[in-house]
Amino acid sequence: MTLAAINNANQDDYPTRLPQERWLERKDPTVWRQWSPEAPLTRAEMQAFDKNGFLILENVFSEAEIAALQGESAGLRSGGADLAPEDVITEPDSDEVRTVFRLDEQSALFARLARDRRVAGRVSFLLDDDVYLHQSRLNYKPGFTGKEFYWHSDFETWHAEDGMPRMRAISASILLTDNGPLNGPLMLIPGSHRTFVACAGETPEDNHKTSLKRQEIGVPSHESLTRMAEKFGIDYAAGRAGTVILFDCNTLHGSNGNITPFPRSNAFFVYNAWSNRLGAPFAAKAPRPAFLSSRDPQAPLAIESGELG
Amino acid sequence: MTLAAINNANQDDYPTRLPQERWLERKDPTVWRQWSPEAPLTRAEMQAFDKNGFLILENVFSEAEIAALQGESAGLRSGGADLAPEDVITEPDSDEVRTVFRLDEQSALFARLARDRRVAGRVSFLLDDDVYLHQSRLNYKPGFTGKEFYWHSDFETWHAEDGMPRMRAISASILLTDNGPLNGPLMLIPGSHRTFVACAGETPEDNHKTSLKRQEIGVPSHESLTRMAEKFGIDYAAGRAGTVILFDCNTLHGSNGNITPFPRSNAFFVYNAWSNRLGAPFAAKAPRPAFLSSRDPQAPLAIESGELG
Repeated sequence: MTLAAINNANQDDYPTRLPQERWLERKDPTVWRQWSPEAPLTRAEMQAFDKNGFLILENVFSEAEIAALQGESAGLRSGGADLAPEDVITEPDSDEVRTVFRLDEQSALFARLARDRRVAGRVSFLLDDDVYLHQSRLNYKPGFTGKEFYWHSDFETWHAEDGMPRMRAISASILLTDNGPLNGPLMLIPGSHRTFVACAGETPEDNHKTSLKRQEIGVPSHESLTRMAEKFGIDYAAGRAGTVILFDCNTLHGSNGNITPFPRSNAFFVYNAWSNRLGAPFAAKAPRPAFLSSRDPQAPLAIESGELG
Repeated sequence: MTLAAINNANQDDYPTRLPQERWLERKDPTVWRQWSPEAPLTRAEMQAFDKNGFLILENVFSEAEIAALQGESAGLRSGGADLAPEDVITEPDSDEVRTVFRLDEQSALFARLARDRRVAGRVSFLLDDDVYLHQSRLNYKPGFTGKEFYWHSDFETWHAEDGMPRMRAISASILLTDNGPLNGPLMLIPGSHRTFVACAGETPEDNHKTSLKRQEIGVPSHESLTRMAEKFGIDYAAGRAGTVILFDCNTLHGSNGNITPFPRSNAFFVYNAWSNRLGAPFAAKAPRPAFLSSRDPQAPLAIESGELG
């Protein structure tokens, strides 16, 4: 039986794009494995991830590793690499590069980063499974004109439009610039990952073509966001370049625009559990293209140890 | 001799709207009076204002006073008052009220606030002169859709378009909501008030009609802002409702957009020294309308002591 057939045959635990928004309880664990002394995270770190739906890890990489990643990033954005147009998203009001997709295919160094034990190894432990890259990209929010990215749960889109069955995926953002509260950092609602906000509205065809710039379908209502923010507050992920932010696929997040002169950039990897590979979309006619959701992974990531480069 | 004639007869110390941007040294003091034990500010507060170009004062008002101001503000924004259309500015993308001008004429309570010794008295001391209101307004940045306000020096516009002769004016922002780093707080570049960035570009006719929503003329270049921010850093003015922020007329400031559910609101009073009343604009054909720049004050503010209300 194919995965698509399995999806269609089973009850959908996370129905969305409905006539009316509603809140559903999460049906999956956040942390899939018990802590043990051999774990690549402390017990407190695993508890924090379970409770908040995200975790900030500092001092993961050496200065030399960070400098190498920054140099590689500058090369990719300045035309030093041969990028397909569909892999590049620009700012709504200018030609500045906002996103480079399929980052692991554009650069050997970033491909190696994606397989690094300090990132992928920890994610694989939390998910208690082998992992593969569902999506990978380089994000760049320029100074002065960086636009906001509205609140959303990634899982809502991945489930509805990509056919991801369970909440068993974790995103890793590796900061390539210093991030403070004022230059459009990632904002997260701690604890929001325990509720699935089933969104109102049918999925338009080719929704991803506009939703990458400004998402309008598959986002919670103002009322839901207000309730969530009043209940849990809003945190932000700041830190020096090299900081790693892990967050659960269902944690509500977004970012404000940035008029400061200080740009914000990160390498972004979405790790999905091997057992959680995609089927048919749950609430869209056709799946999104491969640069947004890898549909045919050949093998789990081979995790590597040691220094980058 | 009229003020306009004086302006035109004298050398302009702050020429702007030029073919090329340039940096000029400030020709006026920031603090015009020596500290003494009778001063309404501590010596450290006055030194901080002199050095940074702004000062944050907490616990100025009682809980009851703050609640009264918040209630009055809600009334003004919800149509409880009879406001002239030219006194109201809405968000670019919606009908939500962003600004109510001539605040002191719309509300006896806000008029009393503007004359309060704890605000106007301190400003008058710093400027060593009587003061009057150059501008007064209620600012409201809604949650979810609050737009950014780009970097600028107020004095650059007041000098060029309103004919304010010297840097002898101070703005007071009285927070009506709790403000954190994430809901679009006022950002300031400490120390920037000591440099006048003479801006490039001629003033278009009726510039204020668009500049209130999105300022494009009379703002420093990306290069200037980058140099300033790298030299001085960027601070932000956070605090609980009731916090008072005083800032010099030439301090570079701006604010990011706000996608959080938490709105931001403040009462905003610009106090100009009585001796610094307006003349003819220095770099515009006609002065801006009275709701933006009071051109004919009848008398200095009569400062009042005691509780509001």
